[in-house]
Amino acid sequence: MNIAFLRRAIKIAEEKSKSGINGPFGAVVARGDEILGEGWNQVVENNDPTAHAEIVAIRNACSCKADFRLQECTIYCNCEPCPMCLSAIYWARIPEIVYACTRDDATDAGFDDALIYDEIGSAWNDRSIKRIQAERETGKKVFQKWLANQDRINY
Amino acid sequence: MNIAFLRRAIKIAEEKSKSGINGPFGAVVARGDEILGEGWNQVVENNDPTAHAEIVAIRNACSCKADFRLQECTIYCNCEPCPMCLSAIYWARIPEIVYACTRDDATDAGFDDALIYDEIGSAWNDRSIKRIQAERETGKKVFQKWLANQDRINY
Repeated sequence: MNIAFLRRAIKIAEEKSKSGINGPFGAVVARGDEILGEGWNQVVENNDPTAHAEIVAIRNACSCKADFRLQECTIYCNCEPCPMCLSAIYWARIPEIVYACTRDDATDAGFDDALIYDEIGSAWNDRSIKRIQAERETGKKVFQKWLANQDRINY
Repeated sequence: MNIAFLRRAIKIAEEKSKSGINGPFGAVVARGDEILGEGWNQVVENNDPTAHAEIVAIRNACSCKADFRLQECTIYCNCEPCPMCLSAIYWARIPEIVYACTRDDATDAGFDDALIYDEIGSAWNDRSIKRIQAERETGKKVFQKWLANQDRINY
């Protein structure tokens, strides 16, 4: 953990959100004292609801490392990650998170993080999204083919 | 809901994962009977742990629509979305999900979806990721500036 990188994530959040176009979020992915990737919220600028600071930083760090895993890295964020970004941190195998503000601070600033945490933790029938399931047996055949493929790369 | 689009998502999953490089996942975002975006898992191919089928399809649909919201759309997936993708669906304001396989089917096929659902729903102390919090007051000042900015675009 390098406190300078947390301060940098906060600074990125401040600088990049000044115009009001980008949300006030910044992130830095570092391996020890080396920054591999940075990111800031670009949802509105890029018309991309997935372009949260942490997602962008992870993509940049993976590009830098030419790897889809960041096992020896730390991610520094100005705010506790939303469930999308926290899940991405798990998929990237990042073992350590350093953040400043909490999800409740994000809620106070007008963001839906806490609501989505509640939804993700609920059963389908209690969620606000409509869910329809069909064709499961057809779908399972694709998974069976995957498992039978000796050339598959696990990730 | 258009069952042909669910079958298409399954077909994409099958076709794109044949080589063993891309995971067996496909997604289609449609507005009524019009496809706005498609995606398949490109984690290994693109060195991008966030390049799940649904994320890619959402990004493509938003690019097609030149919008960061997909309120009138349905997303079709060969498998129940992982928590990263489900959260992205919330952020994109997609109100309807149609899927074939379940998260348990994904687990049986070797994917960590169920594990990450458990982690996301846990308190920090019960998670496998190390968490450090610092500089909260500094971070909150950035949020206060955001709220005071009359030019901000809410998303």
